[in-house]
Amino acid sequence: MKTFSFTIKSQLANSKARVGTISTPHGEIQTPAFITVGTAATVKALTPEQVEGVGAQAVLANTYHLYLRPGEAVVKKAGGLHKFMHWQGPMFTDSGGFQVFSLGEAFGKGISKVATGDEGKSSVNERMSQAKKAKITDDGVTFYSHIDGSKHMLAPEKSMQIQHALGADIIFAFDECTSPHAKREYQEIALERTHNWAKRSLVEHQKLNTKQEKYQALYGVVQGGQYKDLRELSATTLGNMAFDGFGIGGSFTKDDIATAVGWVTDILPKDKPRHLLGMGEVIDLFEGIEAGIDTFDCVSPTRIARNGTVYTKAGRVSLSNAKYAQMFIPIEPDCQCYTCQNFTTAYLHHLIKAQEMLSATLLSIHNLYFVTHLVDDIRASIEDGNFKEFKSQFLKVYYK
Amino acid sequence: MKTFSFTIKSQLANSKARVGTISTPHGEIQTPAFITVGTAATVKALTPEQVEGVGAQAVLANTYHLYLRPGEAVVKKAGGLHKFMHWQGPMFTDSGGFQVFSLGEAFGKGISKVATGDEGKSSVNERMSQAKKAKITDDGVTFYSHIDGSKHMLAPEKSMQIQHALGADIIFAFDECTSPHAKREYQEIALERTHNWAKRSLVEHQKLNTKQEKYQALYGVVQGGQYKDLRELSATTLGNMAFDGFGIGGSFTKDDIATAVGWVTDILPKDKPRHLLGMGEVIDLFEGIEAGIDTFDCVSPTRIARNGTVYTKAGRVSLSNAKYAQMFIPIEPDCQCYTCQNFTTAYLHHLIKAQEMLSATLLSIHNLYFVTHLVDDIRASIEDGNFKEFKSQFLKVYYK
Repeated sequence: MKTFSFTIKSQLANSKARVGTISTPHGEIQTPAFITVGTAATVKALTPEQVEGVGAQAVLANTYHLYLRPGEAVVKKAGGLHKFMHWQGPMFTDSGGFQVFSLGEAFGKGISKVATGDEGKSSVNERMSQAKKAKITDDGVTFYSHIDGSKHMLAPEKSMQIQHALGADIIFAFDECTSPHAKREYQEIALERTHNWAKRSLVEHQKLNTKQEKYQALYGVVQGGQYKDLRELSATTLGNMAFDGFGIGGSFTKDDIATAVGWVTDILPKDKPRHLLGMGEVIDLFEGIEAGIDTFDCVSPTRIARNGTVYTKAGRVSLSNAKYAQMFIPIEPDCQCYTCQNFTTAYLHHLIKAQEMLSATLLSIHNLYFVTHLVDDIRASIEDGNFKEFKSQFLKVYYK
Repeated sequence: MKTFSFTIKSQLANSKARVGTISTPHGEIQTPAFITVGTAATVKALTPEQVEGVGAQAVLANTYHLYLRPGEAVVKKAGGLHKFMHWQGPMFTDSGGFQVFSLGEAFGKGISKVATGDEGKSSVNERMSQAKKAKITDDGVTFYSHIDGSKHMLAPEKSMQIQHALGADIIFAFDECTSPHAKREYQEIALERTHNWAKRSLVEHQKLNTKQEKYQALYGVVQGGQYKDLRELSATTLGNMAFDGFGIGGSFTKDDIATAVGWVTDILPKDKPRHLLGMGEVIDLFEGIEAGIDTFDCVSPTRIARNGTVYTKAGRVSLSNAKYAQMFIPIEPDCQCYTCQNFTTAYLHHLIKAQEMLSATLLSIHNLYFVTHLVDDIRASIEDGNFKEFKSQFLKVYYK
């Protein structure tokens, strides 16, 4: 059976930042690494070769979306996610917990991330506002599909069964993500449930994993909201379970991230990889890595691309602005991505104005290249020992 | 100055079908050839490399669309269409006449082709139904933009100026396309106008062409509706002018094409290339080539792809049908296109259902490969002398 391992190659002095290698049955991930999101078994608007071309090492797909459509049985019959979507490298699937949270307490509060973007967020929101909210019990979560309103149940065992059918290299325990608006009492109850679900996920996973040719690694998901003692309790509890790595979940405000992540990484076993779920803005990457994070996933690079926005070293730029109509140079003249090597900003502006699909493709390529290579550069700076200088210089220009 | 030429390499016995080479400043086109449409300086949902990958020899962009957005001045400043859109091979631009026709008499009669597809046909139709229709005089056409309702004028001189600014290798004289519903009296008036506009286009073109480094070839556009004598008059009149080739325009019913094209190709100079404007269904390709057509352009392959429909040897197939949800083989197992080499029908069905942009890309690749290679196969069958057998066998299966 092909297995999973994590090796730390170097560690920055006086810091938790580290460089390592995650080995999976589908290849290695050099960490820290940005993991590209491919929600519905496709990185939106890109072929797998284009995803490879931006330097992506791995793709994360969403259990919730794939469970509803096309259904995990179809993916399994297709030979698993890798074969289904023609991606040969390492893959992650999340637990479905975050989406279910989005359909429950979080719904309509600006923290939901369920709409897949291209089918029209407004029509999904309209459907959802008429539907019933998700209900959470100790057994699991009953929820209503954002696609057709049909009723479903997700629980730790079910999430494991789905993720084993999908066949990603790294999968996550089913967890309850809480709202930052929830009271302390609720956070305590939810956390205990998350820990019980972690145990149940592990039991089900171990049962299922023996039957497979290729080992799937299971990450536990640390929760605990904005409370230090709950985060520490979660890290301690999960850290003592036989997980292959750890996700850090939750819906924080930006300023919390480094602090909340720091509480957790002080406690989690040093020799296991840590993944920060759903975060990947420039500041998150620097702060997260400094706090001991190894991998990240985030929809931003492709989502903002579809809205005509790109990352540049000087911050985000909306290319639909009229001032770009006659800018006959690339987005960033020194960028080595396919888009910057072959197209001018004026052309991209034109594609956006004409609502041409190619704009989503070309801007996604640039943005994924930008974020992926930024993390590559951070990795190199840790190895070279000049992380702090790199961070301060990069952020000074980016957030100027 | 790099110039333009057309050489006939072989001619099918007892037929007008022929094999040749069009040489342009940006390379050769082996004819007969299917020319891929790239309306707004982009083949929808594809990178130029993907367009090259399907075997496309040339791309046709639309003068009307590019005049309105981004404007020919922007394209010229960018270094011309080739550089602007990063397509190195031969390019055509049409005259704008067809789109202006779509905004006038044809509007709302199911023969308009103005909406670019992705910005929502319904919203364009709504805008248009509130706008004024195009007005045609001997000077030119006054029309209202489908984008913002602004007023514009296109005339032979203006169309030439725009097409010279865009810089395609093969451009078309400004013509008046008539509705098949128009009376004979109107067809006569319109045809005389088209001939006068052809002369004016030629004069303006010759003036502009001397200033350029790379020769742009000008095709006259034969009109005349469904009337044999008018078509013959048009072919004779334009055939005697100094055009580099000829377009055959008009809005016919399917059954007319071979007949109407035949009237014209009997008269047009044999040694100049003929392009059938806006037609490219399977039957059109066989009938057109047999009637002496050298090149075709048509939006169908990419347009139907965006609606989830593909060409197969057994006819068109809509992949959104539930019966494809678990078909774990390519669209056509013996197809050598990128899509069929790497993805199953079940995956494409999933992408369509999830409204993922990648479905437009993958289906467009398959459809353009299908049509482009079908014309390649027809070309080979002419050279091998077995065109008639190939045609009858292919059509028997395709339209079974």
